[in-house]
Amino acid sequence: MSMAVQPKKIVIVGGSLAGLLAGLVLKRLGHDVRILERSPSSQLQTQGTGIVFGPQVQEYFDRFIRMRETYTVRSYRRQTVDGEGKSIPELEEQIVQQMVSWDLVYVVLRGEFDGLASGYLQRVEKWGDEGQGKGTYEYGCVAVGIRDKGEKVELEFVDREGQTQVLEADMVIGADGPSSTIRRILLPEVERKHAGYVAWRGTMLEKEATKELKEMVTDRLPYYFNNTEGTHIVAYLIPGQDGTLEPGSRLINWVWYCNYRPDSKEYQDLMTDSSGRTHRLTMPAGKVQQQLWMQQKAYAAKVLPPQFSELVAGTKAPFVQAITDALSPQASFFNHKVLLVGDALAGFRPHATASMSQAAMHALLLERMMRGELSWEEMCELMMKYARRVSEAGIKMGEKSQFKGQGGGKGWFAISQAK
Amino acid sequence: MSMAVQPKKIVIVGGSLAGLLAGLVLKRLGHDVRILERSPSSQLQTQGTGIVFGPQVQEYFDRFIRMRETYTVRSYRRQTVDGEGKSIPELEEQIVQQMVSWDLVYVVLRGEFDGLASGYLQRVEKWGDEGQGKGTYEYGCVAVGIRDKGEKVELEFVDREGQTQVLEADMVIGADGPSSTIRRILLPEVERKHAGYVAWRGTMLEKEATKELKEMVTDRLPYYFNNTEGTHIVAYLIPGQDGTLEPGSRLINWVWYCNYRPDSKEYQDLMTDSSGRTHRLTMPAGKVQQQLWMQQKAYAAKVLPPQFSELVAGTKAPFVQAITDALSPQASFFNHKVLLVGDALAGFRPHATASMSQAAMHALLLERMMRGELSWEEMCELMMKYARRVSEAGIKMGEKSQFKGQGGGKGWFAISQAK
Repeated sequence: MSMAVQPKKIVIVGGSLAGLLAGLVLKRLGHDVRILERSPSSQLQTQGTGIVFGPQVQEYFDRFIRMRETYTVRSYRRQTVDGEGKSIPELEEQIVQQMVSWDLVYVVLRGEFDGLASGYLQRVEKWGDEGQGKGTYEYGCVAVGIRDKGEKVELEFVDREGQTQVLEADMVIGADGPSSTIRRILLPEVERKHAGYVAWRGTMLEKEATKELKEMVTDRLPYYFNNTEGTHIVAYLIPGQDGTLEPGSRLINWVWYCNYRPDSKEYQDLMTDSSGRTHRLTMPAGKVQQQLWMQQKAYAAKVLPPQFSELVAGTKAPFVQAITDALSPQASFFNHKVLLVGDALAGFRPHATASMSQAAMHALLLERMMRGELSWEEMCELMMKYARRVSEAGIKMGEKSQFKGQGGGKGWFAISQAK
Repeated sequence: MSMAVQPKKIVIVGGSLAGLLAGLVLKRLGHDVRILERSPSSQLQTQGTGIVFGPQVQEYFDRFIRMRETYTVRSYRRQTVDGEGKSIPELEEQIVQQMVSWDLVYVVLRGEFDGLASGYLQRVEKWGDEGQGKGTYEYGCVAVGIRDKGEKVELEFVDREGQTQVLEADMVIGADGPSSTIRRILLPEVERKHAGYVAWRGTMLEKEATKELKEMVTDRLPYYFNNTEGTHIVAYLIPGQDGTLEPGSRLINWVWYCNYRPDSKEYQDLMTDSSGRTHRLTMPAGKVQQQLWMQQKAYAAKVLPPQFSELVAGTKAPFVQAITDALSPQASFFNHKVLLVGDALAGFRPHATASMSQAAMHALLLERMMRGELSWEEMCELMMKYARRVSEAGIKMGEKSQFKGQGGGKGWFAISQAK
């Protein structure tokens, strides 16, 4: 890859997908990239979740990763099912969607960025070192301050030994999620707001499913809307252990949206784990109170089609994520030296399935800017336009499905075409 | 593959894509399939055209062909460009579309169906013979009659020696295109109607294009609408010689819609080739009158953006296809023994890019019917619903773009989502 620019020293705060996607592009372009991740473990724990692989992610993978073989599960039809789990023909849409697991993307990106070993690596062809910069990934590092020093940016963080460190960089990228510390320091007034509902999520091993459940998700991506209850659920197949696509060994991933006002007793209960500890927005896998999980399974049997109810009931370690909104009014700070990317810029509701797409788009735009094909301002304008449009679409979809009894239908899905 | 049914003797009239798609599925299921193609050459001549690979085609290839590697060119964005060839940002849509060449699909299917050798075959992993039936492909065979004989169907055809032959089959499939002979025999009242415009088409080698033209088609699928003139053009990259995806060796394929009333002198001229012979609906590559082609290139310079004009002018062997409508009111005849598939059932206008998708869908439905997952009636009902919906969408799009000055825009593209 030819160098269009001088190598820069770039620090990325946040080592989840958005940080890795941006970091790998910058490394490929010859820059020295250091990722600081706050989590205390060297590898982010599996979130066990599925991701729909959008066009921007496809483009990113085609350009920057050399996968040896097919690595996604494909669905050829988006379906809306009725109370018996049968597809409603008028609502069927012929559209190829590719699904992966969060794990696969994370581990493949880590393998390419800093050489992390994993069972996934056999699926990736090595990229030549020539022209590439350096990629380092440090965990247990919590950013605490950021300062404009003219030509440089100064970042202060506490490392995993508890020592405060200060480092200087040409550019700092805030890729630290919807609750971004970098954004909070720079724009304390931007809030991450609870949307009044949560997603219950989980996976089940495909081979443990009945024929009816398998059929519902094979080659298809089924949704079910219960507009009386203000709830809907979606399920899809994702790769299994070490990325296997072997039928039976894949996972069936599900996301079920249920209303919980953040100030309600129900929500406080839900976010109190089995050991009595309270969580703000995410209840990790395996920590949901047993009794609440029993209730939820009983509720599934009542309001979901039998196949979806089976899927929920057959899940061993469900987890819960509150749905939130966060939108920064700007992407750039310190005169072109600090940039917010991914959820740190705009944390969407999941209905538009655009979170990873946005992160991939940011990385692709960064590349074009670094190559001189776009100015910094043009890049930021494209980022903000997308962020506003998708943010609005996600809110509209969520309000309709959760609170207005208007989930589903062609019009509902079309809202997400804003992206 | 386990056998759900007794092997049947099946004859397919028409050996282009629809016939091959259906034939290969039936062969995979263990049936004896004989394809009769009217063309006098053993291999259909390259039509040199591009095809957008729809969801149903993707599903078909994933299920029935073992491609060793990536074989499509991908576009990540559908764009509408202005008179300078610059994308109009509000009309940009993030959507992955995969493009192939007619040649690639034809030759790969022939390789799998009857073992035709070609340079493409290195890209395909062999399918085991176990459980498969026999596939034979005979050229120069013109169907002339079809009769219901109770348990069997009798098909009469003239072979390439000029001998009349009669054969008996359990099922006859009419896959002989929008001017289908089988359909004409069974339903003489169904017409193939000229829509009042044609598509000029051609390809140019990518490496011969300027930087500006290459940029317009790389990773993108650009459209240009000139609503004052009632004309629009679309271009996209397709694989080159023997399926190569090497940048530079790929082809830029274009389709340019221009109005010609079928009873006009202009149309009669256009359809008269350089040797004075007249053609009804297609002017083959290299036969367009030189003077008309010069005029068309001058017209391109006047009404198209410079990149598209360059593409048209740089094309060595353009060809012309009249746009037509044909829709059979039924798919099934002779009490479940004769079926129309592909364009023979419904020949669409190209705007909904659904012709090959329909043919693949028919093949996939045939499989489900043969496996007992669908009844014959259910299969035909699904075929007819799709045929009517897409036919209507294509007509609506064409009328808007050609005759109402309303081509393009999000609403125009959304019409094709009917499929």
